[in-house]
Amino acid sequence: MLKGHQSWIFNSKPIILGSAAVGGPFEGNGALASDFDIIHEDLWVGQDSFEKAEKVMLEHACARAIEKSNIKKEDINFFISGDLMNQITSSSFAARTLGMPYLGIFGACSSSMEGLALAAQLIDSKSAKYVMASASSHNATAEKQYRYPTEYGGQRPPTAQWTVTGAGAAVLCGEGVGPRVTSATMGRVIDMGISDPYNMGAAMAPAAVDTIEAHFRDLNIDDSYYDLIATGDLGKVGHEIAISLLKDHGIEMMPNIFTDCGLLIYKKDQPVFSGGSGCGCSATVTYGHFLNRMRKGELKRILIVATGALMSPISYQQKESIPCIAHAVSIEM
Amino acid sequence: MLKGHQSWIFNSKPIILGSAAVGGPFEGNGALASDFDIIHEDLWVGQDSFEKAEKVMLEHACARAIEKSNIKKEDINFFISGDLMNQITSSSFAARTLGMPYLGIFGACSSSMEGLALAAQLIDSKSAKYVMASASSHNATAEKQYRYPTEYGGQRPPTAQWTVTGAGAAVLCGEGVGPRVTSATMGRVIDMGISDPYNMGAAMAPAAVDTIEAHFRDLNIDDSYYDLIATGDLGKVGHEIAISLLKDHGIEMMPNIFTDCGLLIYKKDQPVFSGGSGCGCSATVTYGHFLNRMRKGELKRILIVATGALMSPISYQQKESIPCIAHAVSIEM
Repeated sequence: MLKGHQSWIFNSKPIILGSAAVGGPFEGNGALASDFDIIHEDLWVGQDSFEKAEKVMLEHACARAIEKSNIKKEDINFFISGDLMNQITSSSFAARTLGMPYLGIFGACSSSMEGLALAAQLIDSKSAKYVMASASSHNATAEKQYRYPTEYGGQRPPTAQWTVTGAGAAVLCGEGVGPRVTSATMGRVIDMGISDPYNMGAAMAPAAVDTIEAHFRDLNIDDSYYDLIATGDLGKVGHEIAISLLKDHGIEMMPNIFTDCGLLIYKKDQPVFSGGSGCGCSATVTYGHFLNRMRKGELKRILIVATGALMSPISYQQKESIPCIAHAVSIEM
Repeated sequence: MLKGHQSWIFNSKPIILGSAAVGGPFEGNGALASDFDIIHEDLWVGQDSFEKAEKVMLEHACARAIEKSNIKKEDINFFISGDLMNQITSSSFAARTLGMPYLGIFGACSSSMEGLALAAQLIDSKSAKYVMASASSHNATAEKQYRYPTEYGGQRPPTAQWTVTGAGAAVLCGEGVGPRVTSATMGRVIDMGISDPYNMGAAMAPAAVDTIEAHFRDLNIDDSYYDLIATGDLGKVGHEIAISLLKDHGIEMMPNIFTDCGLLIYKKDQPVFSGGSGCGCSATVTYGHFLNRMRKGELKRILIVATGALMSPISYQQKESIPCIAHAVSIEM
């Protein structure tokens, strides 16, 4: 149900029956390794292209989420998925394997929460019995697509982020036990004129702030409602900008509740510069780490604000700045 | 509300308050020229890149649809849009201009009806008061992206289709006067192994047939329910395959009701080989021509089955076949 101008309240509180996170070798050495269901030691996942590797990881995440949900694949009405590839081929090719009615979405790294929000909305409005939402990214496919192939060994500035090799999936339904999706706020596109694809945290921070403000306004709450508010992948640079922008807008976040998936996923000694990024970042940290913490009783109410940089290789070559967006989803135990 | 496995029935029958179609010079010489709200004589639309031209056309279609709906831009809760570009930049950059909460979608040429179905679903479930759905394509941007830049002058086989330069938009709401969206069926990905990007009609026909069958099954109706059933952009080759496949599945479509947007949009003497294609094809033919015919009382019940080829330049280079999908939306007067 619409709440305010751009938010949904899910009165039936759709349940995340099962969720799964799959990661690559770098994530297996990261800070949240134990929260992944599957870690692939091979960046190629046994495939002959990185694109196929990403697709296979996404399929693994979906298969594991279905298994953990104790339902049959055929019960799922709609599969909603997005990724960073041209024409979201990782999602569409996984949808071919799954054979389910499919809604392709694109919000760059915000696709993870765009998908979860739509999935909850479909369950809450009785437009589906079971929906699966997923998102993925792969370091080598994203670098090739947006910047340079990793084999090229190009130098990266300290503001650069490390695209997560990972896929996350969640199965939602109207009945059962598990964390519940209670509301969502869909973001506007915000563009402050940054055009450097090696500084996406700074580009995306204003979009995160805009969506957090809209969420609090639409739901008439403040940050004290949540145990944890995590942006998707602002990294170190963007996280500091977001804190400062929020302060300018009169929102002083408690430092112990405001964090970023891109800051959590890797260890301090991993050479990821400003932090993790990619759809796979917010998807794996949410569907793995955060939901595990909720199931253990460590977190009761969380807000995930997935951020996305809506540029393309062509828009960058044509010297356009980077339009950004953030979608927020509230999950409660 | 879910009906069957993959369809939605919209009990409140959301209303298309206003809709608009914008076309390029080739469309202005086409069979449906009089159904376009704006025809640009300049393929560049006064911009310095074809990508910007496509974005501007999409903005024009949205602006005109809002104007015809007699509402304020600020009333719109959500903007849902998709196109064929890498990372759907036409839609995302238009969303930046519009400043509305934005849901990016991708279903290749099926994006037009994926967007309309989601828009109607949001209105019907009271998740929005006003939603705008749109889609666009541009001949020169799509050819550059998927095949060769048009300046290259590459030869095309007779099975090739002509990507429509056009954008369509529709504003939906729960109250008012106009054509009403009554149901939708979301398609599965179907891939019969065709890998030739110059023969997308043949690749997409099985997906159209699968969705039409699912629509009839879920709603317990047959083709006699409709005055007109139009696929998105199968063109001549794909249309004939679809007729034959439907026959194999026991569905004998009346020839006077079963047509294809890609067969209607151009004149017989235009060199478009197998017919029109692109998100802009089903979007402009539906939001212009078909809705105009409905408003004139010539059509009462139509089913638009927008078809999409979910390949990317990379998946083609990696010799993958083309996964296809079709989403169907029913509109009644």
